[in-house]
Amino acid sequence: MREQISLIGSGQTRFSEWWGKGIRDLMDEAVTSAIDSSPITALDIDFVIVANMLGERVNDQAHLGAIASSLLPHRPPALRTEAACASGSIAIHTALSLLESGRAENVLVIGVEKMTDVSTSEIAAALMGAADAERDAACGMTFPGLFGLVARRYMHDYGLTRAQLSLVSARHHRNAVSNPFAQFKSAIDPESVTESSLVADPLRLLDCSPVSDGAAACILSSKHASPIRFAASQVSTDSVSLTERPFLTSFPATKDAAERAYEEAGIRPTDIAHIELHDCFSIAAVINLEDLGFADPGRGITFYEEQETTPTVNASGGLKACGHPVAATGIKQILDVSKQLQVSGQRYGLAHNFGGVGATCCVHILEHTP
Amino acid sequence: MREQISLIGSGQTRFSEWWGKGIRDLMDEAVTSAIDSSPITALDIDFVIVANMLGERVNDQAHLGAIASSLLPHRPPALRTEAACASGSIAIHTALSLLESGRAENVLVIGVEKMTDVSTSEIAAALMGAADAERDAACGMTFPGLFGLVARRYMHDYGLTRAQLSLVSARHHRNAVSNPFAQFKSAIDPESVTESSLVADPLRLLDCSPVSDGAAACILSSKHASPIRFAASQVSTDSVSLTERPFLTSFPATKDAAERAYEEAGIRPTDIAHIELHDCFSIAAVINLEDLGFADPGRGITFYEEQETTPTVNASGGLKACGHPVAATGIKQILDVSKQLQVSGQRYGLAHNFGGVGATCCVHILEHTP
Repeated sequence: MREQISLIGSGQTRFSEWWGKGIRDLMDEAVTSAIDSSPITALDIDFVIVANMLGERVNDQAHLGAIASSLLPHRPPALRTEAACASGSIAIHTALSLLESGRAENVLVIGVEKMTDVSTSEIAAALMGAADAERDAACGMTFPGLFGLVARRYMHDYGLTRAQLSLVSARHHRNAVSNPFAQFKSAIDPESVTESSLVADPLRLLDCSPVSDGAAACILSSKHASPIRFAASQVSTDSVSLTERPFLTSFPATKDAAERAYEEAGIRPTDIAHIELHDCFSIAAVINLEDLGFADPGRGITFYEEQETTPTVNASGGLKACGHPVAATGIKQILDVSKQLQVSGQRYGLAHNFGGVGATCCVHILEHTP
Repeated sequence: MREQISLIGSGQTRFSEWWGKGIRDLMDEAVTSAIDSSPITALDIDFVIVANMLGERVNDQAHLGAIASSLLPHRPPALRTEAACASGSIAIHTALSLLESGRAENVLVIGVEKMTDVSTSEIAAALMGAADAERDAACGMTFPGLFGLVARRYMHDYGLTRAQLSLVSARHHRNAVSNPFAQFKSAIDPESVTESSLVADPLRLLDCSPVSDGAAACILSSKHASPIRFAASQVSTDSVSLTERPFLTSFPATKDAAERAYEEAGIRPTDIAHIELHDCFSIAAVINLEDLGFADPGRGITFYEEQETTPTVNASGGLKACGHPVAATGIKQILDVSKQLQVSGQRYGLAHNFGGVGATCCVHILEHTP
């Protein structure tokens, strides 16, 4: 990072089904918490970036930058970013460049999604906007279907069993029990995952992150310091359509973004104490651990076979148990890594967020200096 | 501007009804032209920013950053920005910060919209995403309705006549006759505007910019120089809902962005030789000229009563005659101002693009140094 940029405020709603709240209410709640937790006032915010994927289609509301700006008394300049499920982390990346450019000193970043107001089939169709409409959606694929293909191929290549894969969601649910912001605070055993309804073979219902409403917000500053600063922010892109991929069992955009992030931070994977990674489906968590450099190909599941791991993985509960209000996820991950570092006293944590089947990948590294 | 940032490549499709082309085809055509016109190769592009408003809803395609990145052989990092009809200029602003931050040296910016694949009622509903869904759309307003209120109030306050207002679209159509990229290259007389179908009193069909398909692309560089550099880039935000505005006959976000842009460039309005401004509806052109500092309140129409003006206004034909594929407009304006400066040999030109009823406003000032 060219500039010293700190995380000086953060807040979120619980991720849940918020039928009584609108997209503006969710943003307001997260923003108020973020400002209250920071050393600045609302008037010190000089730019607002809103991450959102589905508002135009599901909530009849685009132009969320200006809507969010109106939550503040002085209506600072604002814009919206989108990169499917990576919208939140791409907003963080955009905010960091704005701060590094010197055009702003305190940027409010908000991720919000209100998904539960429409039917399951409508939300499934809307989410397919993250895939390639001409090449993947047109043949009838859904996102569970795309990741089902990935899981089936991974099992074929590496011998991963159904029983092993079930360890992933069980662990994430166990971790979420103590997270007050998690959608599901219930422990589940691996057998429940294996026995849950079949969604897209081999993936079962409890392999899939849920449909959620929620917002997360943070304030990044080049003017004010805090114990948590950004050590790296990297984005990488791959083909959106699976039809253009030479293989399905690894996501090169994760590898590329992670390698560049380690280089930017001047560290190695072994320096990372906490990871929040993008487990939209259980198989993704296994592959991400390999792509991020923490396990050899085919060995990611070992993290879930051990009771305690270094680094910790999705100690928050991840997307599966915390919920996945799409664009809020990338920001909520930053909040969770920050909290974990402050509790453990460790130095480095990593947030990994992707859109589509690993087509846009962002890796952020946070550094804790008490 | 902290860095010297130049416009080193540009290209666009004709704005039209492109029923035989998809959103990817339109982007590809504009991107190929932009790269061909530049001193660099595709491989030199290190970031892609796509402006788009309606893809998720109208084309079933979000995640357009990654889709666009795949048009290039090395798939550089990418993201999408959105701020309703100001999506294009907000993408330029984002690209400039990315360049100023030092994170990129050559950024490809693409604006694209494919609007004609759905019915008029569906596109009208989708466009209302630029307004406030809870406060403006819920009561049945459309965008022509919102600007109809603005026009009616302006006529009441300042005595603007229907015959005077008709001069605006007539001038824009006259200007477009020689623009090969314009959707409507036909001259129309003011009487035709006055006699066209009533859409939202007092606005007639020929007061309204059309529904269009198209893409525009440009390459901004901090590494390579060109005769056209960015002298200022400013964004300002107002309430999205008209219910929160103290008056309707001026858009404070335009005034604020313009004042800050003149200050950033170190110039005055009288230094500007060419303007491309956001004439989504004829009345907007009149008000924008006042808000940008070129006419006193109530006097903007004088620009259309004179045959030749300094500065020139919408010499391209503007949104009315060039077409308005929403997110492509803000980028196409930059391309037009650049061309006009290179033809006239003048020094400064201004592009003004807004979203909603002036809720997000961007002003860019280009400097020509032959």
